[in-house]
Amino acid sequence: MTISEEQTINGLPVGVFDSGVGGLTVAREIMRQIPNERIVYFGDTARVPYGSKSQETVTKYSRQILRFLQQQRVKAIVVACNTASAYALDQLEEETDIPIIGVVKPGAKTAVGVTRNKKIGVIATEGTISSEIYTRYIKKLDEKVEVLGKACPLFVPLVEEGLLEDPVTDEIAGRYLSSLKDSGIDTLILGCTHYPLIRGTLKRVMGEEVTLVNPAYETARELKELLEEKGLLNETHPPLGSNQYQFYVSDGADKFQHFANSIFKYGILAAKQINIEEYN
Amino acid sequence: MTISEEQTINGLPVGVFDSGVGGLTVAREIMRQIPNERIVYFGDTARVPYGSKSQETVTKYSRQILRFLQQQRVKAIVVACNTASAYALDQLEEETDIPIIGVVKPGAKTAVGVTRNKKIGVIATEGTISSEIYTRYIKKLDEKVEVLGKACPLFVPLVEEGLLEDPVTDEIAGRYLSSLKDSGIDTLILGCTHYPLIRGTLKRVMGEEVTLVNPAYETARELKELLEEKGLLNETHPPLGSNQYQFYVSDGADKFQHFANSIFKYGILAAKQINIEEYN
Repeated sequence: MTISEEQTINGLPVGVFDSGVGGLTVAREIMRQIPNERIVYFGDTARVPYGSKSQETVTKYSRQILRFLQQQRVKAIVVACNTASAYALDQLEEETDIPIIGVVKPGAKTAVGVTRNKKIGVIATEGTISSEIYTRYIKKLDEKVEVLGKACPLFVPLVEEGLLEDPVTDEIAGRYLSSLKDSGIDTLILGCTHYPLIRGTLKRVMGEEVTLVNPAYETARELKELLEEKGLLNETHPPLGSNQYQFYVSDGADKFQHFANSIFKYGILAAKQINIEEYN
Repeated sequence: MTISEEQTINGLPVGVFDSGVGGLTVAREIMRQIPNERIVYFGDTARVPYGSKSQETVTKYSRQILRFLQQQRVKAIVVACNTASAYALDQLEEETDIPIIGVVKPGAKTAVGVTRNKKIGVIATEGTISSEIYTRYIKKLDEKVEVLGKACPLFVPLVEEGLLEDPVTDEIAGRYLSSLKDSGIDTLILGCTHYPLIRGTLKRVMGEEVTLVNPAYETARELKELLEEKGLLNETHPPLGSNQYQFYVSDGADKFQHFANSIFKYGILAAKQINIEEYN
């Protein structure tokens, strides 16, 4: 990596990626907690969703995104997708020296800190649940904790259809969550980056006594600690007009921008489309 | 193309492709109507769904699948996906001499033959509806027909979640179809290969007076006519044990087989996974 005089390694961006728009909830949290950092975001909208695909395929896709982010000269990477964190994080770490964090470990850590009765529920995609990665991370922190997982494949399409507050979403949530509710968990991890967008429904179904954990907050905190430890924090705010936040997608830049602008207060500048299959 | 003595061009397979499992409803109809034909089926399960993606991306994917099917030495191709038929058929026809048919034209033709009040509804993915391809084909056949389209993005996830007979599917169908019902159409095209699997719900919501058109039947008939015209029909049934039907996917062969076996009476032998990105 060659670095020009004006651009120190601290001034390089953080790479954040997801299968689509969901990871924007993580990017938003990073913007809030470490506002000096530049971000290069990639959403794999041409191949979304990841949650129902195999480990082999999700790992291949994540590896192509790693190549793209390497070319963008990022100083650290956040895998802002639970399925990719579950399936591909270990593999990515083996293939690069750039520090990488996922969303699963921070989510597990928060939940273990929050639970009082040592019963934690996890809702996520089929891929994340079947990988049992949350269970493994949680057991490493406290082996006495009981972990109950439940795949909720319809939540992502319902969110993407905009049914954030709707009787149908309530009905589906009621079905998915009934066994978790009956089991007496006191903590529920939202193990997919889309789920914070239906927090109201989830809260209503689970009741006030269950704490909902959104890994995005803790992930941004962990990123900040990592950058501090490695002396990589950006000390000064990038000048205005310097494209602090850049967004790339593999399909439908307009549609992505539209969704992004509905969840960001600021509005994003523009998303560019790239051919991700070329990064091998 | 070199053809061995045992294998005439008539004995070569028909290629059938879809973004995933939906096209199996078309393959099933081909098996019924022309039982002597061999079939090579490809389902792009690593990149499913197509319905919410751009024309550029769907065309790129379809072109890769064309390359794969060419390598499999097919004598004809059926694009058993409405979105790919809408977005990519013209482009594919320009790139090969192999005869190709889609599902849109046969569906349009049947609907025009069926309607009495000249009001036809079309339900499909966002891509198929926004392409207005059904409207164009129908107007070519009879310009006096009024065509009303409605995108139904939640139907595919509901079918894939197995909610074929369920109050939630009824509720969502009621919302999607209310404007079509009010408009007084007497014919409704099921413009996505998943939709015949919720035919019961659609029938209930639309009422007995509306005829539901499933393009799969007419597509298989049109394929038969095409093969007859070109002298390409297979006159003799392939010997038992000769792999008459072959299934390829880009991800999750096991999951595909499971779904396929739930809709086929025979059961399919085995699905093989290939890397579709390599076919450029």
